[in-house]
Amino acid sequence: MRNSRRGEVDPFIVMDVMEAARAAEEAGRNIIHMEVGQPSTPAPAGARKALSDAMNSDSLGYTVALGLPALRKRIARLYGEWYGVDLDWNRVVVTPGSSGAFILAFTALFDRGARVGVGEPGYPSYRQILRALDLEPVALQASSANRLQPVPADFADLNLDGLMVASPGNPSGTMLDRPAMEAIVKACADSDTILISDEIYHGIEYDQKAVTALEITDECYVINSFSKYFSMTGWRVGWMVVPQDHVRLVERIAQNMFICPPHASQVAALHAMDCTEELDRNVAIYAKNRQLMMEGLPKAGFDRIAPPDGAFYVYADVSHLTEDSRTLAAEILEHAGVAVTPGLDFDPVRGGGTLRFSYARQTEDIIEGLERLTRYMATRG
Amino acid sequence: MRNSRRGEVDPFIVMDVMEAARAAEEAGRNIIHMEVGQPSTPAPAGARKALSDAMNSDSLGYTVALGLPALRKRIARLYGEWYGVDLDWNRVVVTPGSSGAFILAFTALFDRGARVGVGEPGYPSYRQILRALDLEPVALQASSANRLQPVPADFADLNLDGLMVASPGNPSGTMLDRPAMEAIVKACADSDTILISDEIYHGIEYDQKAVTALEITDECYVINSFSKYFSMTGWRVGWMVVPQDHVRLVERIAQNMFICPPHASQVAALHAMDCTEELDRNVAIYAKNRQLMMEGLPKAGFDRIAPPDGAFYVYADVSHLTEDSRTLAAEILEHAGVAVTPGLDFDPVRGGGTLRFSYARQTEDIIEGLERLTRYMATRG
Repeated sequence: MRNSRRGEVDPFIVMDVMEAARAAEEAGRNIIHMEVGQPSTPAPAGARKALSDAMNSDSLGYTVALGLPALRKRIARLYGEWYGVDLDWNRVVVTPGSSGAFILAFTALFDRGARVGVGEPGYPSYRQILRALDLEPVALQASSANRLQPVPADFADLNLDGLMVASPGNPSGTMLDRPAMEAIVKACADSDTILISDEIYHGIEYDQKAVTALEITDECYVINSFSKYFSMTGWRVGWMVVPQDHVRLVERIAQNMFICPPHASQVAALHAMDCTEELDRNVAIYAKNRQLMMEGLPKAGFDRIAPPDGAFYVYADVSHLTEDSRTLAAEILEHAGVAVTPGLDFDPVRGGGTLRFSYARQTEDIIEGLERLTRYMATRG
Repeated sequence: MRNSRRGEVDPFIVMDVMEAARAAEEAGRNIIHMEVGQPSTPAPAGARKALSDAMNSDSLGYTVALGLPALRKRIARLYGEWYGVDLDWNRVVVTPGSSGAFILAFTALFDRGARVGVGEPGYPSYRQILRALDLEPVALQASSANRLQPVPADFADLNLDGLMVASPGNPSGTMLDRPAMEAIVKACADSDTILISDEIYHGIEYDQKAVTALEITDECYVINSFSKYFSMTGWRVGWMVVPQDHVRLVERIAQNMFICPPHASQVAALHAMDCTEELDRNVAIYAKNRQLMMEGLPKAGFDRIAPPDGAFYVYADVSHLTEDSRTLAAEILEHAGVAVTPGLDFDPVRGGGTLRFSYARQTEDIIEGLERLTRYMATRG
C-alpha cells in the first residue's frame, strides 16, 4: 500500500544497538547498558501507592484536556521551589510526555514550511517530528568551544521562525547558564523567532542549578516531563508552560489530538512531586556515576569529553579513533559487552566521530562497564 | 505571541455543555449526564489488580514503540475470538489511545493537501486533526436513508485520497453491516482511496455483531481502543492494525512522535482482555439503557431516532422543534437538569437540528433523565 513522503522518517540507530544488545543477552551474554536514555528506577514509592489507592476510589476516566487542576497547580508551585519564579498555574498544560508537548507546540506555533532551528548534536526526534508536520528543521552545528550549545551567532542570519534549545542537552549534558540563556532569549526576540526551551533534564544537575527560560521571559514555550528527575519515563506524562494568550489555543488542539494525558499517570505524577527525598537519592547516584565516568572514560581512551552539567550522559569525541562510530559501537558491544550509542542519531554530520555513554544505571554497572571498556580499548590498541 | 493558522481548530461545543453542567452542580443542582462519551465504570478489577502487582515488580520504563509484544499477541488473538479472523500479531501497533492512532495513520498515509472523506455526522476530531496536519477533510453528508453511514455514491466523484469510516458510529450508533462494508472496501479499491476504519465501539453492540474491515481486506488501517468496551477511557491506550508493509514505517513515526504508549496502561489493558464477564455485565447495562431510551425518548417528544446498533448514543433529529440545537440543549440543562449534546460538533451543516443523548451511565440515571425530559418537554409544548 502507498504511504506518505512525510511519514518516511529516519530510523533510530540506537534501536539497532538495543536490539543487538537484547540478542546478545538472549544468547546468554552479560551486557552493561550504557545506551539507554532512562533511569532504571521505578516511579517513586509514594506515587505508586497513590495510584493503587486511586484505582480503588476513582474510575479514572478522561480528565480535562489541560490536565488535572491539582497537578497543574502543583507544577506551578515547583517553579517557585526550583527557580523562585511566580507562575500562574493556568499557563501550565499537562501533556502526554514531552513527546506530546512537542507535537502540541509545533502545531500551535508553526505553519507548513516554517523553519525551526535545532542544535546539533541534539535529540533526534525534534527534527523527525518537525518533518512529519511539514516543517523544516534547520540544523545548527554547535561548537565544542560553546560546549555544544547553540549561541546567537549560530542562527543570526538564518531567518528562523522558531528555535528549540535543550539545557541540559541530550547527548551532551551541557547547560545554557543564565547569561547564555539571556543571550538566546534576546536574539530570538530581536529576530522574531519563537523560543521553545526543552527542560526535561532539570532536577538532574550537578554543580549549578539549571536555568529555566521562564526566569527571563514569559514569551516562550517551556517543555518539561516527569520522565527523568521524577523517574517516570514509561508513564508518558509531561508538561508545557505557554504564554497566557496561547492557553486556549493549545487547549483546543490538545482536546482534539489527545483528549487528555493518561489519568493514572497524572495521579502518580502529582504524588511523585512530594517524593523529593527518594528522587534526590537517585540524583546522588547519578552524581557518583558521573564522577566515575569522568575518571574512568579518559583511562579507557575516551579523553575528549566535556564534563556534563546535568542529565546522565557523556558525549565523547572519538574522531581520533574512527570515522565510523556505528562500527566502533558494534565492536564495543561484541568484544567488551558494553552497549553504547553512536553519535549519528544526534548529529548526522559529525556523529560518525562521536559516542554517547549513559550513566543512568546503578553504580556497580558503571564500575563494571568502565572496567570492560578499559580492558577492551587497551587490547584494541 | 503569534500562532499558526493550522493550530486554530474549532472548539468543542460539548465542552461548553460540560462546563455549564459543572457550574450547575457547583451551585447545588442535581444534573443527569447524558452528554458524556464515556463509561462511568472503571477499568475492570482484574486489570487494576494486575497493575498494582506490576508496580511492585517492574520499573515500568519505556516499552518498545509498537507496544508490549504480549499485548500485541493478545490483541491479535481477539480478532480470532470476535471475528474469526486470523491476524498476524506483527501487524498490531499499540497506540496512545485511538487519538494517537489517528495521528499516526494520517501522518503515515497522507501528504499535505490530501483529501480525506469523513462521514457527517461523525467524530469531530477527525476533521480537526486532519486540518492540524495540513490535510483536507471532505465532509460526506450521510443520509438518514442510509442510517447516517456513508455509501459509495457519497464519495464516488470526490477524488479522495483517503476515507474514514466509523461503525458503530458516533453520534449515531449505527453500523455498516457486511454488505455495506464490502461495498465501501470495493469502492475504495476501485478509486485508489485508502480506507481507515474506526472500530472503537466494537464489543458494545446489540442485535448483530459489528463487522471489522479486516474480515474483507488487509489493505486498510483499522483503529480500535481500550476506551469503550474495555472501560478504560482515561488510560489512553488503543491499537491499530496496518498492512504488513506499513509496520516499519508506522514504527518509526511512533518512535519519534510518542516513544511508546503508557506502559502502565498497556499492563492494565493486557489483563482487561481477560475480564470478559465484568465487561459483558457493563454491556448488559447499556442494552437495558438502550431499551429504556428507545421507549422513553419518543414519549418525551424525541421520536425521530434510528435505533442504534451499537455504542451508547442516540442521535435525534429535532429539526421540527428547533434550528438552534445549542439553545435547546441549554434550555434542557437549565429547566430539566439534563445535560445533552447539540449536534453541531458532529455535523456543522445539519447539527443545528439534532441532539445526541448518551446512555453510558447507570440505569437509574437513565430512568430519572427520561422522566425529567418528558416532564420538561411537556411543559415546553
